[in-house]
Amino acid sequence: MSRPGLILKLSCPDQPGIVAKVANYVAGHRGNLIEFAQFSDQLGGKFFARLEIETQELDVDAQDFITGFGTLGRSLQADWHFRRLPYRMKTAVLVTKTDHCLNEILWRAGLDELPIEITSIIGNRGNCRSIAERANLPFHEIPMDGDAREPGFEQIRALVTEQDVELIVLARFMQILPNDFCRDFAGRIINIHHSFLPAFIGANPYQQAYARGVKLIGATCHYVTADLDAGPIIEQEVERVHHFHTPADLVRLGRNCERVAIAKGIRFHVHDRTIIDGHRAIVFPD
Amino acid sequence: MSRPGLILKLSCPDQPGIVAKVANYVAGHRGNLIEFAQFSDQLGGKFFARLEIETQELDVDAQDFITGFGTLGRSLQADWHFRRLPYRMKTAVLVTKTDHCLNEILWRAGLDELPIEITSIIGNRGNCRSIAERANLPFHEIPMDGDAREPGFEQIRALVTEQDVELIVLARFMQILPNDFCRDFAGRIINIHHSFLPAFIGANPYQQAYARGVKLIGATCHYVTADLDAGPIIEQEVERVHHFHTPADLVRLGRNCERVAIAKGIRFHVHDRTIIDGHRAIVFPD
Amino acid sequence: MSRPGLILKLSCPDQPGIVAKVANYVAGHRGNLIEFAQFSDQLGGKFFARLEIETQELDVDAQDFITGFGTLGRSLQADWHFRRLPYRMKTAVLVTKTDHCLNEILWRAGLDELPIEITSIIGNRGNCRSIAERANLPFHEIPMDGDAREPGFEQIRALVTEQDVELIVLARFMQILPNDFCRDFAGRIINIHHSFLPAFIGANPYQQAYARGVKLIGATCHYVTADLDAGPIIEQEVERVHHFHTPADLVRLGRNCERVAIAKGIRFHVHDRTIIDGHRAIVFPD
Amino acid sequence: MSRPGLILKLSCPDQPGIVAKVANYVAGHRGNLIEFAQFSDQLGGKFFARLEIETQELDVDAQDFITGFGTLGRSLQADWHFRRLPYRMKTAVLVTKTDHCLNEILWRAGLDELPIEITSIIGNRGNCRSIAERANLPFHEIPMDGDAREPGFEQIRALVTEQDVELIVLARFMQILPNDFCRDFAGRIINIHHSFLPAFIGANPYQQAYARGVKLIGATCHYVTADLDAGPIIEQEVERVHHFHTPADLVRLGRNCERVAIAKGIRFHVHDRTIIDGHRAIVFPD
Repeated sequence: MSRPGLILKLSCPDQPGIVAKVANYVAGHRGNLIEFAQFSDQLGGKFFARLEIETQELDVDAQDFITGFGTLGRSLQADWHFRRLPYRMKTAVLVTKTDHCLNEILWRAGLDELPIEITSIIGNRGNCRSIAERANLPFHEIPMDGDAREPGFEQIRALVTEQDVELIVLARFMQILPNDFCRDFAGRIINIHHSFLPAFIGANPYQQAYARGVKLIGATCHYVTADLDAGPIIEQEVERVHHFHTPADLVRLGRNCERVAIAKGIRFHVHDRTIIDGHRAIVFPD
Repeated sequence: MSRPGLILKLSCPDQPGIVAKVANYVAGHRGNLIEFAQFSDQLGGKFFARLEIETQELDVDAQDFITGFGTLGRSLQADWHFRRLPYRMKTAVLVTKTDHCLNEILWRAGLDELPIEITSIIGNRGNCRSIAERANLPFHEIPMDGDAREPGFEQIRALVTEQDVELIVLARFMQILPNDFCRDFAGRIINIHHSFLPAFIGANPYQQAYARGVKLIGATCHYVTADLDAGPIIEQEVERVHHFHTPADLVRLGRNCERVAIAKGIRFHVHDRTIIDGHRAIVFPD
Repeated sequence: MSRPGLILKLSCPDQPGIVAKVANYVAGHRGNLIEFAQFSDQLGGKFFARLEIETQELDVDAQDFITGFGTLGRSLQADWHFRRLPYRMKTAVLVTKTDHCLNEILWRAGLDELPIEITSIIGNRGNCRSIAERANLPFHEIPMDGDAREPGFEQIRALVTEQDVELIVLARFMQILPNDFCRDFAGRIINIHHSFLPAFIGANPYQQAYARGVKLIGATCHYVTADLDAGPIIEQEVERVHHFHTPADLVRLGRNCERVAIAKGIRFHVHDRTIIDGHRAIVFPD
Repeated sequence: MSRPGLILKLSCPDQPGIVAKVANYVAGHRGNLIEFAQFSDQLGGKFFARLEIETQELDVDAQDFITGFGTLGRSLQADWHFRRLPYRMKTAVLVTKTDHCLNEILWRAGLDELPIEITSIIGNRGNCRSIAERANLPFHEIPMDGDAREPGFEQIRALVTEQDVELIVLARFMQILPNDFCRDFAGRIINIHHSFLPAFIGANPYQQAYARGVKLIGATCHYVTADLDAGPIIEQEVERVHHFHTPADLVRLGRNCERVAIAKGIRFHVHDRTIIDGHRAIVFPD
């Protein structure tokens, strides 16, 4: 991801010859395919692809290459998206009290595992302020209890719009987003839910898991839609538990699942390795 | 489990001194504790234990040892159960069409991983007849469609009663048991559900999992109660899946989870390694 | 895999334009790409691909399509291989005493998970004879102790040659193959080793694992080379173990890893999802 | 672990009646057993136990309870150890360049998952200084290259002795400890090795794993002995990898295994859940 290049994501109705046409376009302009991940969905009749293209030898300007693809893209009735590399995605992180997911994101961003630029950390509580400050990142405390909820979300909306935020990460953010917010940022909000969805939707999933006596707990990283905890799943992790684990133990053990799942989910998203297809997410992992 | 000995399962209100009292009873009669698994449930205020006792040096007859425990057991307000080793549990296996769980049970029983004596294989379809016959086991085809359902279950009840069956295994048996049947055999019916419960209760869980786009599928081995797919969980297994897996692929990949989960679940049960505690199962694994 | 079609495996020096050229060849003859898995090895400078092609609409005969690819293949300096679908690979299974891997192969072949035709089961002991016979498959007992070793392997060689065997599976076959045998069948012999290679090479790996006190045991399915247990790895499975597990418990628990690893390994091989690259195996899983 | 209480670890030759005798001692002084984990090693003829005892109701002073146990302990020919709760173990962390394991330890200690008091962070490079300082912990840079090695380790020895350090954690410390150092702190040094031991002992295990083409990588947390990477294993973690992962990817993916394994290993040790038995470690997990 660090070399100059392009990522192309594409989905279209399946039909013979797509790979040839797309690869021809790339090769015709002397692009070098580093990776061509592809999925022909025989059941849904759709084609999905992600291409990673080195552009050093390109015979046209990268922007012309992108623009020129339009003719082919339209003829395939495709949805497509180009990303120019190197890239850092502007990201806002929303938090409430617990900080392990935020910590993980900061740590991995620092290691360059996550090519993101965190423009702001927003909390409806102040608990994560010190972590944000230690990382020299702006922290915005925006109360959302009771009547403060509606203006709170308006404030978030104003902030992320002003900062050209492309990705909103709910890192254990304990508020349900308004429907219009979900709609307006569709495909750009990632949540971590602390259960193996669709089991234990909603509040206190570890308590629910304890009560049900499951032998594995989990965490689910998914895109947010207006339908609570029902958006397309990007990644899931599980951990074995036993009868002697209390709900507090599940919280402790589950933190690790949450950290891994949210970090992988964000990485897949910012590397353009995900394509949303209705209720499901295509993921080309790395 | 092959040497002469005893297994004692016990649960009672938690209180200081239980371990000492129970261990004293054993040592007082020159029993030798091979294993003393114990769980003090701080949240529920209950104590659970499983003891494995060598009885070669016992100073009384094993039956007297068992009877004599009653005084202590009652003083602890305990539920308890002794099993004399070696032991083979009389087991009926109920099937419908698919045979992989039945196969697994037969294979593991043959390897002595499962100390069971299969008294009968009962199918509401004839698909598993040939497997039963190849294993020299009686196969009973009992139709259960429509009006045949009620007399069908009466027939099963008569059969397992006559054969002194102690364990009924639903090895992908595609009928919902009548409530009174569940009640009368409470704690003695084990089912394999082909999902990670409580996700995807009911029919076609792999199709449900595909539609939801989960990244892990699973199987759950649990005790059967009148509440569908809600009985105490004994064991769960999961397997990672990807967007390119069709529902048919999930069926294929899930078979392995099902086989492992049901085999472990049966093993824990027949080795007396499970104690049902309301909606949960205590499992002391081996 | 059941529809008429072709699988193309290909490896060549990496260079721009390969995907386009290969996809053009397919599309130019009206082949329909179902799957195009590809790997550009940036470190090794090589390109690997596996294509699955529907051929109903092909404008030439499948054989002409295959032959015609030669011009392109040679110009890419490629190694390549076509397989016509549907296909069943002729397979010999070599065993000694334990039968769980053989059982698994028979079971999965019966379910059509493994498109193989078992031409013979060969044992240097007679233990697996009854299983073979129950499956209506020819069993050849070929002793190999002491002086019988060399003529034994000559007999195997004669048998598999006569039967046009394409794949030899060592399903817990406890003899080390002669070097020339390994060489002559390079890339066509698959072994299951009952450890997480490269840990515990050679005899009694479970005993070794017990002595070392590992917390996970495993199994490794790999191609056989003259270098013992060092051939390219296709698949590995692990299972968590504890201090209370004896070597006999490790044998019991490990069986499941072995079964899963060998079944996946064979499946990947017969579906042409593996490409050997020196000491490593490229695997495009399904 | 936060209530006043005691942990007793004990190992002795196996013999009938141990559980009764030990439990009697506890109950006789009105101690309340919260947990009694036990292992009768039938192969090695040894008995191991860990008891967690609430002491609010004790009829003697805790110190008298501990001292008084001596008579029983000696009669059992036992090694035993009492720990008074609550407790924080004085710990020194040794590092070189990479900081993810140090980070993890600091994070979990902050969450009270690890009841340790970090007395010093010692680096043979300065890379981790800023992390230490941000956590308000003393950082000691002690060079160890070439001739500096011997005096360097003398300096460490002086420091940990002066600070009454009970646990030395090698958190990706890239120096081999001198034999006498290993001996003098036997059972009190924990290392994380970035491979699934005993595979890939020594330097560059991820590079070794890449070259070998394994399908799973791992990390091993173990006690340090003079025999490199051969000490008793406490915990192991693995992660699935694919042919497209470079050695750099393995480093990235492996970090998570390392973090989890070292955190669990330290937790088990400081909670007295480990007993070293020759080359193996008994671990009673929580």
